[in-house]
Amino acid sequence: MPTQPSKNLETVPNPKPERDYEIEISTPEFTCVCPVTGQPDFATITIRYVPDQKIVELKSLKLYLWSYRNEGAFHEKVTNQILDDLVAAVDPRRATVIGDFNIRGGLHTVVKAEYTRE
Amino acid sequence: MPTQPSKNLETVPNPKPERDYEIEISTPEFTCVCPVTGQPDFATITIRYVPDQKIVELKSLKLYLWSYRNEGAFHEKVTNQILDDLVAAVDPRRATVIGDFNIRGGLHTVVKAEYTRE
Amino acid sequence: MPTQPSKNLETVPNPKPERDYEIEISTPEFTCVCPVTGQPDFATITIRYVPDQKIVELKSLKLYLWSYRNEGAFHEKVTNQILDDLVAAVDPRRATVIGDFNIRGGLHTVVKAEYTRE
Amino acid sequence: MPTQPSKNLETVPNPKPERDYEIEISTPEFTCVCPVTGQPDFATITIRYVPDQKIVELKSLKLYLWSYRNEGAFHEKVTNQILDDLVAAVDPRRATVIGDFNIRGGLHTVVKAEYTRE
Amino acid sequence: MPTQPSKNLETVPNPKPERDYEIEISTPEFTCVCPVTGQPDFATITIRYVPDQKIVELKSLKLYLWSYRNEGAFHEKVTNQILDDLVAAVDPRRATVIGDFNIRGGLHTVVKAEYTRE
Amino acid sequence: MPTQPSKNLETVPNPKPERDYEIEISTPEFTCVCPVTGQPDFATITIRYVPDQKIVELKSLKLYLWSYRNEGAFHEKVTNQILDDLVAAVDPRRATVIGDFNIRGGLHTVVKAEYTRE
Amino acid sequence: MPTQPSKNLETVPNPKPERDYEIEISTPEFTCVCPVTGQPDFATITIRYVPDQKIVELKSLKLYLWSYRNEGAFHEKVTNQILDDLVAAVDPRRATVIGDFNIRGGLHTVVKAEYTRE
Amino acid sequence: MPTQPSKNLETVPNPKPERDYEIEISTPEFTCVCPVTGQPDFATITIRYVPDQKIVELKSLKLYLWSYRNEGAFHEKVTNQILDDLVAAVDPRRATVIGDFNIRGGLHTVVKAEYTRE
Amino acid sequence: MPTQPSKNLETVPNPKPERDYEIEISTPEFTCVCPVTGQPDFATITIRYVPDQKIVELKSLKLYLWSYRNEGAFHEKVTNQILDDLVAAVDPRRATVIGDFNIRGGLHTVVKAEYTRE
Amino acid sequence: MPTQPSKNLETVPNPKPERDYEIEISTPEFTCVCPVTGQPDFATITIRYVPDQKIVELKSLKLYLWSYRNEGAFHEKVTNQILDDLVAAVDPRRATVIGDFNIRGGLHTVVKAEYTRE
Repeated sequence: MPTQPSKNLETVPNPKPERDYEIEISTPEFTCVCPVTGQPDFATITIRYVPDQKIVELKSLKLYLWSYRNEGAFHEKVTNQILDDLVAAVDPRRATVIGDFNIRGGLHTVVKAEYTRE
Repeated sequence: MPTQPSKNLETVPNPKPERDYEIEISTPEFTCVCPVTGQPDFATITIRYVPDQKIVELKSLKLYLWSYRNEGAFHEKVTNQILDDLVAAVDPRRATVIGDFNIRGGLHTVVKAEYTRE
Repeated sequence: MPTQPSKNLETVPNPKPERDYEIEISTPEFTCVCPVTGQPDFATITIRYVPDQKIVELKSLKLYLWSYRNEGAFHEKVTNQILDDLVAAVDPRRATVIGDFNIRGGLHTVVKAEYTRE
Repeated sequence: MPTQPSKNLETVPNPKPERDYEIEISTPEFTCVCPVTGQPDFATITIRYVPDQKIVELKSLKLYLWSYRNEGAFHEKVTNQILDDLVAAVDPRRATVIGDFNIRGGLHTVVKAEYTRE
Repeated sequence: MPTQPSKNLETVPNPKPERDYEIEISTPEFTCVCPVTGQPDFATITIRYVPDQKIVELKSLKLYLWSYRNEGAFHEKVTNQILDDLVAAVDPRRATVIGDFNIRGGLHTVVKAEYTRE
Repeated sequence: MPTQPSKNLETVPNPKPERDYEIEISTPEFTCVCPVTGQPDFATITIRYVPDQKIVELKSLKLYLWSYRNEGAFHEKVTNQILDDLVAAVDPRRATVIGDFNIRGGLHTVVKAEYTRE
Repeated sequence: MPTQPSKNLETVPNPKPERDYEIEISTPEFTCVCPVTGQPDFATITIRYVPDQKIVELKSLKLYLWSYRNEGAFHEKVTNQILDDLVAAVDPRRATVIGDFNIRGGLHTVVKAEYTRE
Repeated sequence: MPTQPSKNLETVPNPKPERDYEIEISTPEFTCVCPVTGQPDFATITIRYVPDQKIVELKSLKLYLWSYRNEGAFHEKVTNQILDDLVAAVDPRRATVIGDFNIRGGLHTVVKAEYTRE
Repeated sequence: MPTQPSKNLETVPNPKPERDYEIEISTPEFTCVCPVTGQPDFATITIRYVPDQKIVELKSLKLYLWSYRNEGAFHEKVTNQILDDLVAAVDPRRATVIGDFNIRGGLHTVVKAEYTRE
Repeated sequence: MPTQPSKNLETVPNPKPERDYEIEISTPEFTCVCPVTGQPDFATITIRYVPDQKIVELKSLKLYLWSYRNEGAFHEKVTNQILDDLVAAVDPRRATVIGDFNIRGGLHTVVKAEYTRE
């Protein structure tokens, strides 16, 4: 039975929580749907974070990104949403999400959102 | 009302049928579903052809490529299928389709199929 | 009826005004007219800003850039003008506009203007 | 008084007509108008030819390319038209014109037309 | 239970045997052992072939390349061996294997072997 | 008799301990085993440090990296482990280890860990 | 009558003196003469400055750079001279000149001089 | 006393006249003067030839290219002239000269002339 | 005791003499001495050949290239000499040697010599 | 009589000592000998400094780098030695030397040493 897309970002314990270190995960395999035209949009998503007690489990991240495949999503909103969901799931010390969206109407759009735990 | 994906490749008359010339259309925005795992696959598709009486209409080509979004498709089969559909629709003098699929299991696969009218 | 060029930069509400995040929009499709020779100039325009309550609507930005097509514009002035118009329209927290102009007389000119709300 | 766009491709005598040699002229500064939407299109044009008795005068070529600025032009037609006009003006032994058009609807189109004097 | 390395290259039926088309599979994830020093060697392997009735199954190819991990293998021999095994397994019309080995002693070695069915 | 992999990082005296300077050693020749699937993983490892009294001996570093060849190792853990072992062996003033792991499941992961002596 | 090389850097009023912004002008078309051997030297010159009340007029800059064509000039001296002349002519808030000189005797030399108004 | 520019291309005996082999010499350090405007032009010159009994002496080639520094020269003519002079001096079996001229008026021009001894 | 430079190119038996295949070995680590000035020259050497019964042993090739370190050698002569020595040692079916020499006097020289057994 | 390698770094007066500016000289033409194996090592050396009263004379720098050709030199030591010799000779305000050594044993080593006058 095939694996399913899921909004559930799973985590595993950080093997080195006593050190500030950085994890960067990037993929050109992100697609959602333009809320205005209903046509597919494509982006490269880059996630960079400094974990605290938890790190994101890679397979669940893949399923999470897959979950946008049939959803309408504006560039600015979806980039911030991924950051919010990452923060909620792994409670990192710092995190950045970059959405680099393919050209539409001759315009190339990149959205970059950052979070720092206070 | 949003435009819909469609298997129908529309054509317009070739503005210069008396000359052999080449049209190349490429896009990194192709996605289908792996028939084995049910998970998304991604590819860059390049179409190159020498038209005869008809050329492919670009918007219909976009909708055509969109139509694979939820279909299961093996790399080798889908590349040949796009070539077959292009040949059926525009009856070109020559045509090539290249499917450059993203890495799976550490392997990067590129399929290249060519057609020459006899 | 075709869409028209327009100086009117439209906005939509920022979906995440409580966070400082960055939006970068770039296009190689900018052309205006040299005020001295009357001949076309070409540039790549990059707009980068941190929105407050509003973000720029992409289609109106495209029409806005189109509005320079038949206007005479010096490199330094037009880059600052785009920044002024962006600031007036979206009232961002910070903004940068970069105009990277094609070679003229063997010289390659890049103008970079920044704005920070005080 | 500013120079004007012109369809007139002027020529000068080939300084070495007894030898087959190749001249390639390319520019990213080509813009015309989409006949369907009325919006600007952009392309890089490459012209490559083997002259016979005449070579194209560069300033007139610049004015010629400028003449498309406000004309509606399909990708395939305009590339062939430039080749036809070049052949008519300089009567070369061989000639190629390549129109590499910016991305529209996620699709990148390149048209390549060749001529050989028989 | 984890999958195991295997010399067994499995195949599936070619979905388009009536057409000559090309499949290229490449991976930077090849490692074997130097027969002289016993130390690890690393290479990028590229396999390109025109299938007849069978195409190689990708997962079995991955396990096949894995099978060299603990084997001693000279650059020239292993590249030819992969070609021989591919030919034996899928009986292609044409095939090429390229082994691009990492620098040893300041020398960068690339071995390229080709097969054509007679 | 061939050299053997070893966890023992040997050192030699720093020829210039009175100066803070940086040594960077990188290699694309790192492979370990995925603890979940038992299949090989591949990475480029970059080590950058400011030595104090000792510098790492290059041949022993090579044997050390080789020692992971048959070990199960998660991306985050192995990168931190290399940093810990380097710090234990050479007691540097500062050190960074970057593990740039090959794509798995469409995701490219880079782990970067830093150490500063207090 | 052809234009002449000239040491006279002309200026025009800064269209946006109330804002700190940056202008970068670069050209690979700089040549002077080696004072030792009398042979030609070649460099790429990059000028970057934040204007105050004046900006440099581009045509006069071209003629200025041309004026070095037959002058003997050491790398370090000519780079500083261009900066001095720019500062004298446009009185900028900040300015940088980079002279990137072609390889001589296997050595590639880049000189970078900066000015900040106090 | 400094070396002087010279039209005299000197030669030395080919050390291997019994074999057809190729010599390619390229330099970005070519400048002449536009015959129309009197302003400097710049180009990268590539010379490729199969020698017979003589090869060109490199220092004299440098002085030869220097000799164009103050001469008016059209792109097409100067490229053919260099080929003619090379052929006259070294009597090669085959020769090619490529003049890749810097952008003027937005146009990038490359001239390629070939010679084959009959 | 350290290994010594040597003109002796050693060979090992070709593991697949019944197939025409290609071996390419390249290195940026070639240096000799200019016979005119006595100063060091540097080059990247590429050797490409189709072996018959013998292949070159890599360590002896390294020592062979090392043997030029203190020898005076003109670009054209040394490239042909390496080809001659390779042909004498391994008696290949075809062979190519490319010497890509670092810039001297602004000129970049590449010599390419080929051999085909008759 | 050929020029000789020399440890003597000669200087000339800085033409602009009243300004802090940067000179960067780089060359891929550095070779020494591995003190362990006696075999040649190769590196790209980059020297960057802010001069005070003296600048390094380029020809003497070339002869200086040549002087390492037959000397045994560890990566870390030779990079620091070049920096020490530069500081002793030109007494700069700041200086950096980077030694980027070719791959040995699969490892690529870069050593970067900096000096600031107190």
